[in-house]
Amino acid sequence: MLSSNKDLKIYNSLTSTKDIFSPINENLVGMYVCGPTVYNTVHLGNIRTFISFDLIFRYLKHLGYNVRYVRNITDVGHLEDDSDEDKISKRAKTEKIEPMEVVQKYTNEFHSILDLFNVLKPSIEPTASGHIIEQIEMIQEIIDKGYAYESNGSVYFDTNTFSKDFKYSKLSNRDLDNVINESRDLAGSNEKRNLQDFALWKKAEHKHIMKWKSPWSLGFPGWHLECSAMSRKYLGNKFDIHGGGLDLKFPHHDCEIAQNECLSNEVSANFWLHTNMLTLNGKKMSKSTGNSVLASEIFDGNNNIFSKSFSPMTLKFFMYQAHYRNTIDLSNEALLASEKTFEKIVQLKKDLDNLETSDTSNISSQDWVDNCYKSINDDFNSPKLIANFFDLIKIINEIKSGKKKIDKENKDLLINYFSVFSTDILGLSFESEKNDNQNQILDILIELRDKERENKNYIISDFIRDKLNSLGINIEDNK
Amino acid sequence: MLSSNKDLKIYNSLTSTKDIFSPINENLVGMYVCGPTVYNTVHLGNIRTFISFDLIFRYLKHLGYNVRYVRNITDVGHLEDDSDEDKISKRAKTEKIEPMEVVQKYTNEFHSILDLFNVLKPSIEPTASGHIIEQIEMIQEIIDKGYAYESNGSVYFDTNTFSKDFKYSKLSNRDLDNVINESRDLAGSNEKRNLQDFALWKKAEHKHIMKWKSPWSLGFPGWHLECSAMSRKYLGNKFDIHGGGLDLKFPHHDCEIAQNECLSNEVSANFWLHTNMLTLNGKKMSKSTGNSVLASEIFDGNNNIFSKSFSPMTLKFFMYQAHYRNTIDLSNEALLASEKTFEKIVQLKKDLDNLETSDTSNISSQDWVDNCYKSINDDFNSPKLIANFFDLIKIINEIKSGKKKIDKENKDLLINYFSVFSTDILGLSFESEKNDNQNQILDILIELRDKERENKNYIISDFIRDKLNSLGINIEDNK
Repeated sequence: MLSSNKDLKIYNSLTSTKDIFSPINENLVGMYVCGPTVYNTVHLGNIRTFISFDLIFRYLKHLGYNVRYVRNITDVGHLEDDSDEDKISKRAKTEKIEPMEVVQKYTNEFHSILDLFNVLKPSIEPTASGHIIEQIEMIQEIIDKGYAYESNGSVYFDTNTFSKDFKYSKLSNRDLDNVINESRDLAGSNEKRNLQDFALWKKAEHKHIMKWKSPWSLGFPGWHLECSAMSRKYLGNKFDIHGGGLDLKFPHHDCEIAQNECLSNEVSANFWLHTNMLTLNGKKMSKSTGNSVLASEIFDGNNNIFSKSFSPMTLKFFMYQAHYRNTIDLSNEALLASEKTFEKIVQLKKDLDNLETSDTSNISSQDWVDNCYKSINDDFNSPKLIANFFDLIKIINEIKSGKKKIDKENKDLLINYFSVFSTDILGLSFESEKNDNQNQILDILIELRDKERENKNYIISDFIRDKLNSLGINIEDNK
Repeated sequence: MLSSNKDLKIYNSLTSTKDIFSPINENLVGMYVCGPTVYNTVHLGNIRTFISFDLIFRYLKHLGYNVRYVRNITDVGHLEDDSDEDKISKRAKTEKIEPMEVVQKYTNEFHSILDLFNVLKPSIEPTASGHIIEQIEMIQEIIDKGYAYESNGSVYFDTNTFSKDFKYSKLSNRDLDNVINESRDLAGSNEKRNLQDFALWKKAEHKHIMKWKSPWSLGFPGWHLECSAMSRKYLGNKFDIHGGGLDLKFPHHDCEIAQNECLSNEVSANFWLHTNMLTLNGKKMSKSTGNSVLASEIFDGNNNIFSKSFSPMTLKFFMYQAHYRNTIDLSNEALLASEKTFEKIVQLKKDLDNLETSDTSNISSQDWVDNCYKSINDDFNSPKLIANFFDLIKIINEIKSGKKKIDKENKDLLINYFSVFSTDILGLSFESEKNDNQNQILDILIELRDKERENKNYIISDFIRDKLNSLGINIEDNK
C-alpha cells in the first residue's frame, strides 16, 4: 500500500464536499458504476463516464487496493418515458431480431469500443436479466417492510411512507412536490398511491417479450431496482464508491438509495461520484437535431462535424484534459489541439528515454513525482496531472540545452513514474505510433526512390521497387 | 440464397448418416452450441470445437441463411465428479475471489482468445446464472409431467419413467444398465430412485455461495438443464442444429434431449453435430501428466512442447487441416508443417493478385469454384477445401510459366472466390503479414543505407539515419 493513499480526496455528491477517502475494509475497495443500456451504440457522453471511472479504478489499484469494480449491463427494464415498453424490446422490433440478440450485439460493440480506449474490464459485469430472482426477492423484502405496494400486478415504491422514516432524495435534495412536477413516468400513474412513486415491478403487456413470473404478475423489474439488487449481491449493504453520469443522480441514484436504505437503514455507498456532460459544439448532443457523432465516426472520419479523423487515444486524451466533474465541449478545434498536445506527450516519452545523464544532478525528480501524486490525489484531477507532463517537457528542454543536469538515478525515477502516470493510471497507449511508423518508413523509401530516379540512378530505384513488390506493395511510376 | 445450399450434407449424430440439410423455417437457421465452463483458461480441445462451429456458422451465413447462433456460458452448476461443489465455486476459493469474479475473468479471457482466432461472436451468449427462473420453471414442468421427483430438497430426472415412454440415450445408444456402470455422479446417490437418474436441481450446502431460492430448496440447477432451458427460450422447442464436443454426447446431450423431449414429445434439434478430440503428441491432453499446453503458451512460445512460437492463424489453419469429426494430433512437426503450408496460402493470395491476364483463357475458374463448394458441402470438409487451394497454386504456376492463360474475367472470379473461401468462410486472416511488413520495409532501408555507406555516399546514408531517428528508430553505425 502506497503512503499517498492517505492523501486521496474525493468529491462526494452525498456531502457536497471533498472528503478524504478511506475504505470500509482496509485494502479492499468496493465500487459500483452504472453501466450502459445496451439497446444502441454507446453515446460519447457515456464513454466519457466509463473512461473517467477507468482512471479511478486504475488509480485505486495503483495505490495498492484490491478493488472489486462492478459495472452492470442494463439489458431489460429501462423504460422509455411515458411508455410501457422498454428500450430493448422496442429496438428488437425495429431490427426484427430477438431482444437478446439486440443485447448481445450492442454489448459486443460496447466492449469493442472501450477496448479501443484501453479501458480496463470491470471485476464483475452483471446483467439485469441475469438477476431477476435477486430483484424479485428484494421487492418482496421492501413490500414486507411496508415501503412498497402491489397495484394491478405491478409493484411501486411508496415514497410517502419512506419519507416519514428516511430522507428521500439525498443526492439531489428535491422535495417530494418538486419530484411530482419533474416526474415523467406517467405510465401507470393511475395505479400509484403518489405520483412520485416509482415502479419496482411492471406487469407486462401481452406483446412484451422479455417477462418473467413473479408473485405479482408476469412482468419485469423497474430500472432503478437492478443496481440496488446487484450492488447488494456483489458488494454488500455498505460499500465504498458508487458512480455514474450526472444525469443518473436523479431519479436513478436517489431511488437506488431509497430502495437499499429502507432495508438496511443506511445509505449503500459512502462516496457517490458523478461525471459531468460532454457537449458537441457548445450544445447538448442529440440525434434529432443532428448535433451528434459516434466514437467510430470520429475514428474513421466518416462524419460532418470534424475536418479529419482522430484516434481513440486523442479522444481519450481530450477527455482527460478536463476534470471529470466539469463539462467538456467537443469541437474540431479542441480535437486538433488535443492531437497536437498528445503528440508532445508521445515525443516527451521518446526524449525522456534518450536523455543524456551526467554524474551530478541539479534536478529533483522526486519533487516532480510528488506533484503528480498531489494532482491525482485532488479528486483524480487529470488536467492537473497532465500539466505536470508539461513541466517535465520544460525540465527536459533545460537538460537538453545544458542549463540543467540530471544523473541516472533521477532520470530512471522520471522514466518510471512518467510511465506509471501516463500508462498505468491514465491508461494512455503509445502503441498506435508503432503502426503509424510503417507508413512513415514507407514514405522515406518512396522519397529516396524519387531522388534516385531524378539522379537517373535506376539500379537503386528498381531495387526499391522490386523489394516492395515482393512484399505485395506495388508502387506505380508516375512518368 | 445461394443455389448450393441445397447440396449441403451434414453428418448427424442422431441418425449416424450424412443427411441433406434443410432448415425448419426457410431462410432461418437456429443453432445451439454448448459453450465453455468459465472456471479456468479454455482448453485447446474446446477451442477446436468453437473454431469448427465458427466455420459452420460462417458457411450457413454465406449460403444466405439468417442464422441465430446461441452459444452459452456455463457459470454455475457444473459439478465436479463425486462432489457437491461446482467448479466455479471451487476455483473462487482457490483464487480467493467472488465466484462471479472468476466467471468474469475467464469469460473475458475466453473472448480474447477466440478474437485472436478470428472467431465470430454468436448472436446470443446466454449465461446459466442468468436463466435460473427459466430453469426452475422447466424443472416444475418436468415434475408436473411425472418425469422428475424431489428428494431431500434436490430434484432428479426419473430415467426409468422416461424410458417407458421414450427412448433414453438416443445419441449414444446406451441402455440403462450401461449408464449405471458409467455414471460417476455418486453424489446424492442415496437420494435417487435409480442410480442413472441425474440432478435437475441440487440443494446447496451451507458453504455454497452460488445458490438461489426455489420451490424445493436454496440451491442451484444441474448442469444438463441450462442448455435445455436456454435453447428452448431462444430457439424454441424444435430447431435446426445442436453442437458440441464429442465428450458432451453422453451424458450431457442425451440428458438434454430427455429433458426437452419429455415436455415437447420431440427431439429438440434436427441435426446433432459433434467435434472430435485434439490430442498432444499422440496422447490425451492432461494437466496432471504435464502433457498440456495453452493457446497463449503456443503464441508466446513459453512452453516445453514446441521448438518455437506459432501464430493463432497457424494454429487455426492446423486445425482446419483435419475434418472436425476426425481426431487431430498436435505436435511440433505438425505445427511447423502447418506454418509452411499457411505461408504458401499467404503467397497464393499475393500471386493471385499479381497474376498477368491475357485476352483469352484456357482455364475455367468456375470449375474451381464448384469444386470448393463441393468440398465444403460435404459436411463442412475443411481439409478438402484447403486441397482446392493447392490446386489453385498449380493453376497459377501454369499461368506464370506460360503453359496456361487466364483472362480478366476468370482471374476476377478466382480472386473473389478465393477471398470468399479463405477469409469469409474459413475466417483466415492475412492481416498479420501487414504488421510484419514494417520490419521488412525497415530492412530494405537499412540494406540500402549499408550499400550507400559502402559507396561512401554519406549524404543518402545520413538522410536515412536522420529520418529514422525522427521516428524514434535509432540505428547504430557498426564501424
